[in-house]
This record gives sequence, structure tokens and C-alpha cells, in this order.
Amino acid sequence: MAARGGNAIIGQSGGPTAVINQSLVGVVEALVKVPEVGRILGARHGVKGILGEDFIDLRLESADVLERVAATPSSALGSVRKKPTPEECRRMFDVMQKHDVRYFFYIGGNDSAETTHIVNEEARSAGYELRCFHVPKTVDNDLRVNDHTPGYGSAARFVACALMGDNLDNRALPGVKIDVIMGRNAGFLTAASALGRRYPDDGPHLIYLPERPVTRDRICSDVRDVYNRLGRCVVAVSEGIIDADDPAGRTFTEVILSEAGPIEQDTHGNVQLSGSGALGDWLANLVKKNVGEKLRVRADTFGYLQRSFPGVVSPVDAAEARECGRKAVEFAVGGSWLDGSVAMIREPGEEYRIRYERTELRNVAKETRSLPDDFITLEGNNVTVEFVRYALPLVGELPENCRLAGW
Amino acid sequence: MAARGGNAIIGQSGGPTAVINQSLVGVVEALVKVPEVGRILGARHGVKGILGEDFIDLRLESADVLERVAATPSSALGSVRKKPTPEECRRMFDVMQKHDVRYFFYIGGNDSAETTHIVNEEARSAGYELRCFHVPKTVDNDLRVNDHTPGYGSAARFVACALMGDNLDNRALPGVKIDVIMGRNAGFLTAASALGRRYPDDGPHLIYLPERPVTRDRICSDVRDVYNRLGRCVVAVSEGIIDADDPAGRTFTEVILSEAGPIEQDTHGNVQLSGSGALGDWLANLVKKNVGEKLRVRADTFGYLQRSFPGVVSPVDAAEARECGRKAVEFAVGGSWLDGSVAMIREPGEEYRIRYERTELRNVAKETRSLPDDFITLEGNNVTVEFVRYALPLVGELPENCRLAGW
Repeated sequence: MAARGGNAIIGQSGGPTAVINQSLVGVVEALVKVPEVGRILGARHGVKGILGEDFIDLRLESADVLERVAATPSSALGSVRKKPTPEECRRMFDVMQKHDVRYFFYIGGNDSAETTHIVNEEARSAGYELRCFHVPKTVDNDLRVNDHTPGYGSAARFVACALMGDNLDNRALPGVKIDVIMGRNAGFLTAASALGRRYPDDGPHLIYLPERPVTRDRICSDVRDVYNRLGRCVVAVSEGIIDADDPAGRTFTEVILSEAGPIEQDTHGNVQLSGSGALGDWLANLVKKNVGEKLRVRADTFGYLQRSFPGVVSPVDAAEARECGRKAVEFAVGGSWLDGSVAMIREPGEEYRIRYERTELRNVAKETRSLPDDFITLEGNNVTVEFVRYALPLVGELPENCRLAGW
Repeated sequence: MAARGGNAIIGQSGGPTAVINQSLVGVVEALVKVPEVGRILGARHGVKGILGEDFIDLRLESADVLERVAATPSSALGSVRKKPTPEECRRMFDVMQKHDVRYFFYIGGNDSAETTHIVNEEARSAGYELRCFHVPKTVDNDLRVNDHTPGYGSAARFVACALMGDNLDNRALPGVKIDVIMGRNAGFLTAASALGRRYPDDGPHLIYLPERPVTRDRICSDVRDVYNRLGRCVVAVSEGIIDADDPAGRTFTEVILSEAGPIEQDTHGNVQLSGSGALGDWLANLVKKNVGEKLRVRADTFGYLQRSFPGVVSPVDAAEARECGRKAVEFAVGGSWLDGSVAMIREPGEEYRIRYERTELRNVAKETRSLPDDFITLEGNNVTVEFVRYALPLVGELPENCRLAGW
């Protein structure tokens, strides 16, 4: 199957990352080398931009600007959280037909893969010839098939550094410190809090993950144990931890917020967990009340900082994000496939190496994966050395964490 | 006056910074060159360590470890928030006499300068011969006499990067974003949120500082104006902003927390403002209720992340922190003074250059300074170009912030 002539649309979708523009530029730089592809259109705010015919001509961007945009965090084309209806898909095909678009690249996580999948299926039903490719990104690292996803390495680097700093801070001014970290259903990002540990008593001393529901009592007794042993305690908590005492199996955030008023959801049905300090403050009060009223207890919620922080970028992550963009184009014009997603597979062996494969859209769409069992300790309140071995190559070399020999 | 023979104590005090260990190592590397100085003792947790005779022999530390400790954020000797009583001072002199200590170096902010001042005055009254020198540090940048203080440049770099990333995030997924930034009484750190702006419509679009009390109505109408103009709004808020409607002139945080229960204070009389998302969440609700129920409003509180984040360090700041440590020793053994603090004075002229002077302890102790009037716009909700000119040389080169030419 020779590549079909026509124009291309690229969109970005879902939460921004520090390296999502690397993928965008990867797609563009690969597309300009394909003779069959004419115009390269950037859709502003993803599918919303297609519906509104809101395009940028990416062929007009200079190589210098593209390189600088690649190094700039967050989605340069704008993003969106939107699942298109069949009716909206047909309107998109009208727009695409008008612009003779035959290639669609969508950079995002599982929800964006679902959108790509829907667009692809609807194009088939409508008889509109379109090659739909999804380019992976998500700080949550919860895409199936993939060893890991672009965006995770840099966000994990932020979390590792943040906890390294916070542990040093807590050692200097002891007390209980609670850090709330992003990750709706998967604990990968929260687990990264362990990566900056160097000394046996370095924090985080406790890591609570969405994969292991936990009770209030257990959190308090865990904190009490660590505090009694070390005189301080640093806790990393996922925003998605589940209340083991809740009959409905909801997250603590949902339990707390449901008492406060109606809950915000997006069109994918996701409840807002970030952008609020509620869980952190609630946990700090819980610990204070149950472990010690006189304890110095503080809580920080990392919120949106962790997903696109300029200057805290993993070089490995940046390079892989770029390559995912290039590979999507290679798969799209290579002749073997009409649709798919780029999957990152780790080669076996001691040396860290990644192979890029094409996978079916349905394999990465919608459903997510969780932290594997062997990455979580039996007690359920920490990560294993297997996790550290898995994640360390993804974050780049970490900053200095050195103590005086005398202490 | 020749330098008197004897041993030296170094302590760190107050909130950690990313470069406070540079100052520690600066003091140590200068002291080892002074023949009159024998042992160099590090007091763990500042004055608390002196009272408890809890010392580390810093002469035993290798040059390699010292260099790596200098590059590690937070206080390697441990920190403390404690104002010694006259009685405690006399107990400290007993300890010092026992160890033949004649030099006391204390690294910290205005509260630590006050402690150094108290120790110095009490030593005079008690007839205990001691040279007391304060080495400046504070992310708040509120020490008097100084152009700026070590620790500020790196924390300001963090805040500038954070807002740069958050502005890019907000441009990709528009809405109202509120970021709460440290700074008890002075708005220097919050003002640094402006340093990453590059394009005319880059956020933060509004900056609220402790120096300008503001009403709830004004915040809401400001946000409404920006949102109507740009379709989005990024707001940087100091944790110390004052409620202009409160008859007692308290901070919003104090007003909110006073409704929630008793307020925590340290021995310097400071109320806890950090380590809680209360102000951010409250502001998000305020905006939602008054500007638009359907608005996407999020709030992040940077908390402790901003003061000692590994890897986000201003090279200028690190070098100056080191030099402040060295200068304190130079002043202490130079023969002209028995006590004092190191002050950083900016040389006039286009090129950025700093001169180090000895100043009286009372000049930097206790009282703080605020953001000068010409750094704040007349409207009181943003900073001027004069501030940017002042602060840019302190944070080092900032990461890339580049848009597509087409948007």
C-alpha cells in the first residue's frame, strides 16, 4: 500500500506535559520529508479546532522556532478534554474533506487514544479515507501496552526532586510532611517520589498509592510508627488513594468533596482531583488529631506544577517523545497500516533500550493500567526496589543529595 | 585588633533554602585558613544544638563531601526556629567556655539575625568574649540593608519557572488559575512570578502582594476583566495578602483560619501561613461564586517546594551564598569588628555587580523590609518593569518559552 497523497492534521489533547511539544515537532519534521503529504495543519485545542476549522499552517514554522517550541513545556497547539460524538465526527470529516485531509495525528493519553479510536471507527463507517494515528503522552504513565509513556519521565523527575528537597527540609526542621501527587488511577507518579532517596532513613517513608485502598486508622498508625522511630515522617500520597472504609470504594477526595457540594466532571467522566488542597489539608488534620496535636504537620499539594515545569525535564523523556512523533509518521506512511498507536517496548537486558512498535488503537484507548504488584511492597505503603530499577533510567541523572559525614 | 585564638561554632536557622549549605561551606573553607581558629563545630539545629552540646566536627569533613553538601539544598546542620532567652544565652556561654569557643556564625534570616544580636548583647553583659556574625539567607528577600539575600534568587527562579509553566498550561487548557506563593510580609517572591513572562498576554496577569491590601470584590472584578479580555487568567497571590475589608487588617489566611480554630505560632510570634491549601481553595471558590459558576478554576499552593527544590538553583545565587559565608569569616578575623552581619550591596551601573559590606546586627535583626513602591504598579495588582530589571540578574538564565509563529 503506497502512502496516499493528501494533507495532515495534528492535534494535542488532555493534560499538557513538559515534552508533548517534542512529539508535535517529531511529527512535523517527519511529515515534511514525506512527498505525498501536502499541507501540515495544526488544530488548535485538538478536535475542537477541527470542528471550528481553527488551523495553523505548520509548514510556515521555521526549524529554529520548532526546535525552541519542542523545548517549551505544555501543548503549543492548545489542548482540550473532549470525546467527540458520532455527529461531531461527521462534521469533522466534512472539514477534513474540504481541506483534503487524509492523515490525522493525535497526541495524548488514554482518553485521546479513545478519541482517535472513535474518529477512526467513524471514518470507516462514513467511508472517509483517513489514516488515524495516536502518539502517546501522559504523566500518569497508565497507557496499556507501553513500558512507559512520554511525559512520565519528566514529571517523575519533578516528583523525585520535590521529595528529595522535602525530605532534606523535613530533616532540617522535623515534623510530619504530607505531599499529594497527581495520578488519577495509577500510582506511577506517586511511586516516583522514592527515586531521590539515597540514605536508609531518607523520605518519603510512606507511599500511598491508588492501587492499595487504605483506612484512616492505618495511615495514622503508619505515621506514628515512623515518627516514633525517626522523629520525623515524610509521606507521599496519590490524589487518587481510595478509602478502604468507604462502602462505595470511592477515593478520599471524592468522600471529602461529596460532603462539600456537587462534583465536577469532564466529558470522559473524570472527577476533578487536582487543583485543590482539600485532600492534603484533610490528611494533615487527620494526623494531627490522631497522632499528636502538638506535632508540626504540613501538607503540600503539587497540583499542576508537576506536569509541565520548565527546566525540570528528563533528557531521555524528551528524546523519546520526539521519536514517538517521528515513528507515528513512519507507521502512517509506511504502507502496512491505516491506523494505530506508537507503543514503547523495553528491550530485555541490563542496558536500557526502547523499541517502538505500532499497536492497535483499541489496545491503548480508554482503559488504563495500574502499577504492577511487584512494584508495591507487601505492606502496601511503599515501593519495591523493582520499581526503582524500572523508573530510574527514565528520569535522568538526579541532583546532589549529600549529607555531612558527621551526621 | 588581632584575631583571638579559639574555636568556632556555626549554626543554621529558620527556613531552609536551596543554597544555605553554600554559605555553611563558605564559612568552613574560610575558617580552615585562619591559624587562630582551632576546632570548627557545627551545631545541630542551631542554638538548640549549642544548648544540648550537639556538635559535629566540621574539620573532619573532606573537601569533596563539603562541595557536594554545598550543592545539596536545605540546612545540612539541621535548623530551628527559636529565640533564646537571656537564661538560655548564659547556658550557651557555659557550653562555649567549656569548648573554648570564641567565634559564633549564624546563617539565617531576620529572626536568626535577631538571635545573633541577642547572643551578642548577652555575651557583652556576661563579659564572655565572643565574636558573633550573622550570614544572611532568606527566600523572602526581606532583610534590611541588603540589595537581596542568598536563597532568594533560587526560590525566585522556582517561582518564575512555575508560573511560566502554569501560564503555558493555562493557555493550552484555558480557565482561571490561582497560584499561592510564599512570603510572610514581603512580596518579593510572589513578584518573581512575573520574570518568565515573554509575550504581552503571558501570565501571571494579576499579582497580589502583601504590600497592597485588597478586597474580595476587587480580586473578583480584576479576574473578570482579564478573563473577558483573554479568555483565561493566571493569578499569583502571596500567602500574606491582607484583607482590606478586615477591620483588624489581618491576612486573608488569618481571617479564614480564625474561623476554623486556634492558630499556630512559633516563638518569634509568626503565624503559620504555608503548608496548607486553605487560601488557594478559598480564593478558587470566591472566584467561582462571583465570576462564573461554570468557569474552570484551579488553585495550587507552592508551599515548601519553592524554597529548597533540588536542581532549580540560580548559579548567581549559589556563588553569592558561598561568598557571604567567606566574607563573614573575613570580617570576623579581620580585626576591625567584633560582631556584625554580611550585607550585599549592588554597585550602581548597567552591569550587575555585588559588593559585600559588614553591617551592624541591629540593622538586619527582627524588622523586615517590603517591596519598594516603584516595584508595584499604581493599580496594586502587578509589578513594574523596574522590578523585573532588579530581579532578572538574580535568577540565572530561564528555560525556553517559545510559541509557534502561527499562534
